[in-house]
Amino acid sequence: MSKNGYHIAVVGATGAVGQQMLATLEKRTFPIASLKLLSSKRSAGKELSFKGTTYTVEEATPESFEGVQIALFSAGGSVSKALAPEAVKRGAVVIDNTSAFRMDTEVPLVVPEVNPKDLEWNKGIIANPNCSTIQMVAALEPIRQKVGLKKVVVSTYQAVSGAGLEAVDELKTQTADLLAGKEANPEILPVGGDKKHYQIAFNAIPQIDVFQENGYTFEEMKMINETKKIMNMAELEVAATCVRLPIETGHSESVYIETEQEGLSVADIKELLNAAPGVTLQDDTANQVYPMAAHAVGKDDVFVGRIRRDLDRANGYHFWVVSDNLLKGAALNSVQIAESLIQQDLLS
Amino acid sequence: MSKNGYHIAVVGATGAVGQQMLATLEKRTFPIASLKLLSSKRSAGKELSFKGTTYTVEEATPESFEGVQIALFSAGGSVSKALAPEAVKRGAVVIDNTSAFRMDTEVPLVVPEVNPKDLEWNKGIIANPNCSTIQMVAALEPIRQKVGLKKVVVSTYQAVSGAGLEAVDELKTQTADLLAGKEANPEILPVGGDKKHYQIAFNAIPQIDVFQENGYTFEEMKMINETKKIMNMAELEVAATCVRLPIETGHSESVYIETEQEGLSVADIKELLNAAPGVTLQDDTANQVYPMAAHAVGKDDVFVGRIRRDLDRANGYHFWVVSDNLLKGAALNSVQIAESLIQQDLLS
Repeated sequence: MSKNGYHIAVVGATGAVGQQMLATLEKRTFPIASLKLLSSKRSAGKELSFKGTTYTVEEATPESFEGVQIALFSAGGSVSKALAPEAVKRGAVVIDNTSAFRMDTEVPLVVPEVNPKDLEWNKGIIANPNCSTIQMVAALEPIRQKVGLKKVVVSTYQAVSGAGLEAVDELKTQTADLLAGKEANPEILPVGGDKKHYQIAFNAIPQIDVFQENGYTFEEMKMINETKKIMNMAELEVAATCVRLPIETGHSESVYIETEQEGLSVADIKELLNAAPGVTLQDDTANQVYPMAAHAVGKDDVFVGRIRRDLDRANGYHFWVVSDNLLKGAALNSVQIAESLIQQDLLS
Repeated sequence: MSKNGYHIAVVGATGAVGQQMLATLEKRTFPIASLKLLSSKRSAGKELSFKGTTYTVEEATPESFEGVQIALFSAGGSVSKALAPEAVKRGAVVIDNTSAFRMDTEVPLVVPEVNPKDLEWNKGIIANPNCSTIQMVAALEPIRQKVGLKKVVVSTYQAVSGAGLEAVDELKTQTADLLAGKEANPEILPVGGDKKHYQIAFNAIPQIDVFQENGYTFEEMKMINETKKIMNMAELEVAATCVRLPIETGHSESVYIETEQEGLSVADIKELLNAAPGVTLQDDTANQVYPMAAHAVGKDDVFVGRIRRDLDRANGYHFWVVSDNLLKGAALNSVQIAESLIQQDLLS
């Protein structure tokens, strides 16, 4: 690092995640020597504030990455596919928050609490997992380390900010319209680019991202495949049902697991999670303490509660996992990857 | 039946479910000779319309049931416990929508599409199952009949109207307040009588009804125990996670099952559900067709979609079940029980 820190670029700086990236870099006093805010042509020229200084957002081009050491990408898969290799060519390490490279066998997919060592074999691009995957593996890893993991069945309760700022606006406008007795006019959710759009206000939509031929959505397949890759367990059984809800920010997950070994008590799990990095246990049912999206917003940790044994299988457990999808689910995890690269002395 | 039909009483007529009971009796042109609308002292004196006639709601007392043949109860467990035996004493058959008698071994718990024959051994009281249980067993029964059922893991997405009209008002008021930048002031949800209350607008609360010592909520234990009783399968493995959401009406469920026998294809399941009474298949992912709460409101059926095989276990399947919790989940099922009693000639 230069004497003042690193030369950083944020691609997609004006988006929901991009703005959280800037807030996170600021909050964690990440060592920054220079900062470039990049975006599509459409958003170029906008002004954003960082540590009291106003920055003008520039259009991202291959040349934008000259001199950049760490490039945080969150501007959609096509932008990453086009520009991440260009950034790497110019010497930057790319931490990519899109799904573009996640399943690429040449690209490590990293949650620093789970598989920081995978950063060692990076070739310039590191992928940040899907938001719903990150919070789940952070909660599962301490259990897996202790008794192994055989099967995971997850049903998600996902917030609209995962679909971008436009989806947040749609939720708010639509909710106000319905409360005023007007009709809902869905234009974005469940998936901006898909054929049909459905009411999200006061509704639950069992579709996030587009459908695959096997009947699962791409979001569900992300959770399935990314969990196996992050945990380095190709044989792990994972199934997911991903649902979009009228919540602005904060993803929740109902998780059922079967462990390899039997005998772990609920008290054991609580102890493991209490000691786990990045995880906060919120589990006191006698006092109605459990994680909730509304309480997780703006917080860094993954919150776990409602831990209980399956009533039939000795290796079965149920729990409830909540996290801010824009922070640990995206921006924070990306910045933590950058911090882990520095800590492990993996930046050239 | 008298020449004009039956003498009916509706207990809890002013509540969310009571009002749907009246609407359902009217819509299905249930044969009614006389109708009594009963309630707590607090709501007595209110006027309600039925088939163009105005009825004054009376306070429910033991004597209210003189001459009543069918009493539909939906006024809370304590009212049912106090007055259902009194109604039976006076010759009425009670169809009770509360949890008061559901697990009583002397009381059949009935979903007419699943176990109509259990009505034969009723001793005057018949229990209507919990809303979230009804829609799930209606969807599961055709599959169970074909290949047996071993395990069920369900995560629910439940609407606030299941907690009564006050909860609906709280959702609306709170949502409007938050949109206007005001604070949320939760007073009812998740459970009116519990110690703490949490924001429901733009949130997901993993608590419905009070917690039991085993870490499950009473709602979750209802789903577990009622499913076994309705299906007459004490050995069936059932687990549930029940979650309250900012949805006015319409419960959704993410269901994972393991069947006894392997080999059922998704096409087989679609065929079974297409032929099942009270079930509508909505499953065409290529055209984004799947069940949603917002589309199920006001409709009688249980809607099933997102049917797909588990990617790991040959006897594993996932699907998504939606129904109007006030109709099939409560009022409609109660009226269908009454119709089934008539059809099976079980009314004295």
